[in-house]
Amino acid sequence: MIYVVGIGPRRDDMTIRAFKVLQDADVVVGYGGYLRQIRDLTEDKEVIARGMGQEVERAELAIFHSRQGKKVALVSSGDPGVYGMANVLYQVLGKYEDVKVEVVPGVTAATYTSALLGAPLHDFAVISLSDILTPLSEIKRKVKKAAEADLIIVFYNPRSKRRKIPLKEAYQILKEVRKATTLVGMVKTGDDGPEVTVTTLEDLSLENVDMSTTLLVGNTFTYLQDGKMVTPRGYLSPHTTHPLASDFYEKYLAGEGVEGPNLSCEYYPCHQHPQNCTFCYCPFYPCGDSSTGGQWIKEKQVWSCEGCQWIHQDDVVQCIRAKLDQILHNIGDLEDRKKELLKLRRECVFSTR
Amino acid sequence: MIYVVGIGPRRDDMTIRAFKVLQDADVVVGYGGYLRQIRDLTEDKEVIARGMGQEVERAELAIFHSRQGKKVALVSSGDPGVYGMANVLYQVLGKYEDVKVEVVPGVTAATYTSALLGAPLHDFAVISLSDILTPLSEIKRKVKKAAEADLIIVFYNPRSKRRKIPLKEAYQILKEVRKATTLVGMVKTGDDGPEVTVTTLEDLSLENVDMSTTLLVGNTFTYLQDGKMVTPRGYLSPHTTHPLASDFYEKYLAGEGVEGPNLSCEYYPCHQHPQNCTFCYCPFYPCGDSSTGGQWIKEKQVWSCEGCQWIHQDDVVQCIRAKLDQILHNIGDLEDRKKELLKLRRECVFSTR
Repeated sequence: MIYVVGIGPRRDDMTIRAFKVLQDADVVVGYGGYLRQIRDLTEDKEVIARGMGQEVERAELAIFHSRQGKKVALVSSGDPGVYGMANVLYQVLGKYEDVKVEVVPGVTAATYTSALLGAPLHDFAVISLSDILTPLSEIKRKVKKAAEADLIIVFYNPRSKRRKIPLKEAYQILKEVRKATTLVGMVKTGDDGPEVTVTTLEDLSLENVDMSTTLLVGNTFTYLQDGKMVTPRGYLSPHTTHPLASDFYEKYLAGEGVEGPNLSCEYYPCHQHPQNCTFCYCPFYPCGDSSTGGQWIKEKQVWSCEGCQWIHQDDVVQCIRAKLDQILHNIGDLEDRKKELLKLRRECVFSTR
Repeated sequence: MIYVVGIGPRRDDMTIRAFKVLQDADVVVGYGGYLRQIRDLTEDKEVIARGMGQEVERAELAIFHSRQGKKVALVSSGDPGVYGMANVLYQVLGKYEDVKVEVVPGVTAATYTSALLGAPLHDFAVISLSDILTPLSEIKRKVKKAAEADLIIVFYNPRSKRRKIPLKEAYQILKEVRKATTLVGMVKTGDDGPEVTVTTLEDLSLENVDMSTTLLVGNTFTYLQDGKMVTPRGYLSPHTTHPLASDFYEKYLAGEGVEGPNLSCEYYPCHQHPQNCTFCYCPFYPCGDSSTGGQWIKEKQVWSCEGCQWIHQDDVVQCIRAKLDQILHNIGDLEDRKKELLKLRRECVFSTR
C-alpha cells in the first residue's frame, strides 16, 4: 500500500490524516528537504531520501517497498496532486499491477499563500512556470488566456537561478493584458517563516522572485485593505436607499434625468471636470468594493464614494444604461434587486477596466 | 481575534492548526451544517449557527464577539479563501478598525476531489458556477478562456435545484472547444462518504450534478488508468534506444528517410492505411502517455505503441518535422535531449488534438 502524502507548507498545516498515515507507515520515501521537516515523526521507520530530479526513482522505490508488503508513505510538500508526487507515481504505476494507492490531500501553496495575503481568491488559475517538462509556448498560452479571462493567477515554481525566461515572458503578457496597477502578492517561504509582500504589476521586481516564492496576481476587483489583498465576491451590505437618491431615481425613471455633465448643478464638478452626471447617485451604492476607489469611513461606518470617479465616466454610463432598464422598474428595485444591480456593476467594471 | 478556519472536506482532512484553533476558541460562528461536523470539538463553547445566505451576518457576528475580547473561530468548509468566509469577512471588515484576523488554510475541494480521482491535475482553473453574485457573462468568459488554454477546470457549486443554466452554458462551451472524449471526474459528498465517477464530456449527464458535486474536466493529456484519472507531467521513463531505432535515425539524419506512406515496407500498414511512415520509429519512445492510446504491457514492463496512431498522422509529422532538426543532431540526442523531445511532443499533441 502506498500513501501519497501531502505534508502541507508548514508543520501545523499538515492534516490529521497525513499525520496518522506517517505514524502508521513502515517506509517513508521523499525529497530530503521535506523529510527533514517531519524527522521527528519518522524516527522508527525506514527513511529513503532522494534528490530533486529523482522523482521517477522515488516513485519506483515506493512501488518496490509496497510490493514487499510494506506500508509506504511517499511524501510531497503542499498537496501531492499539485505538481507533486501523485502524478509521477500514477505515471510509473502504469507498468505495474495490484499496487494500492491512496492520495492524502494537503494544503497547497495557492491557498496557503492566499491565507497569508488576506482573501485574494475568487475564480483562479494555478500555473507552473517551470519549463523543464512543459514547452514555453504552452505556458505562455495558458498565461495569456488566464489573464484575458481576468482569472486570479497563482504561479508555482516561478523562477530559479537557471530558469528566468518563463517568468519574464509571463510578466510581459500580464503587462499587456492587465492594468499596471493590478495587485501582485508574493510569499517567500524560509527558515524564519514566510515573507509576505504586496506590490503592483508595474512595481514588481522579477529579481526578488525565486524558487521559494509563490506569486499571486489579483483580478480587476482585487484591492488593498490595511495591507491585505482582498478580492470581493460582491456580498451585499445592508442598506436603505437615501431619500435624495429616491428622489433622483423617481426623476430618472420618469425620463427626467440629466444626461452627461450637469453644468447647471451647484456642486458640479463634485469629482472632476469633465464628469458624466447621468448617475448623480450611484445605483450600486454602497458597493463596498474598494477597487474603484471608494472606502468605508470607519468611525461612522459609512461608505464614501469620494475617491471613486468610475460612475461618472462616459463608457461606464453607456455600459450601465444598456442594461439598467431591465432591472430597475421602480424605486423599490434599488433594494430588492440589489444582487442583479451588483452583477451589472461587475460586468461594467470589467468591460471598462 | 478572529480565526477564519477551513475545516476541510472531511474530518480527517482538517489541519492540525485548524484543530488547535477550534480547541482554543471561545466563540464558534458558522453555517449550521459545518458546525455539526465539528460538534464534539465545540461542546464547551458559544456556538452561533446561521443559514446559507447569511454570510454577511456571520462575519458581523464574528467581528462583534472579537471586539468583546473573545477568541472567535469563523468556520468555513474546505479552505476559507476559496469561495469561503475569508473574502466575506475582509469585505465587512473594511468598516472596522483594529480587528485582528488570521486565515487558517484548509484542504479545498479541488485537491480533495483530485486525490479521490487519482492524479488529474496539472495547470488548472477553479471556477464557481454560481451566478448569484457573478454575472453569467463573466462565468462564460472564464470557462471559454480556460477551455481554450487547455487548463484542467474544477467547477465549484456547479448546479442546484434553482440554478441550472450556468452548468448548461459551461457544458456547451466545453463541447465546442474540447474533444468529446475529454475525461470528466465527479465527486459527490454525502453522509455515506464520497461517490466518485469518471466519464467523458460527451457522456456526462448534467442531471447527475448537484450542489454536493465537484466537477473536474481533464486536459488534452488526461487519460484513464485502472479507473483513475491521470494527467501526466511528462516525466522520463529510463530507456535505452533500440538498435533498430538507432539504424532508422542514422538514415533519417543522413536525409535517407522515407516520407509519407512506405508502401514498399513488408509491414505496411502496421497500424492503419493510410499512414505516414516518416517516423517509423517514434522519436518520443517511450512517452509513457496513455492519452494517445499507448500503454504499458504490465507483465513485461514494456511500453506498447500498438494502440497509438498519432505519430503516423500527416499533421503530426508536419508539426514534428518543423522543429525536430533543432533538437536531433545525432543518435545520442534521442536519449540526451529526451526532455526537449518530450516537450516537442507535448506541443504537437496539443496543436493536432
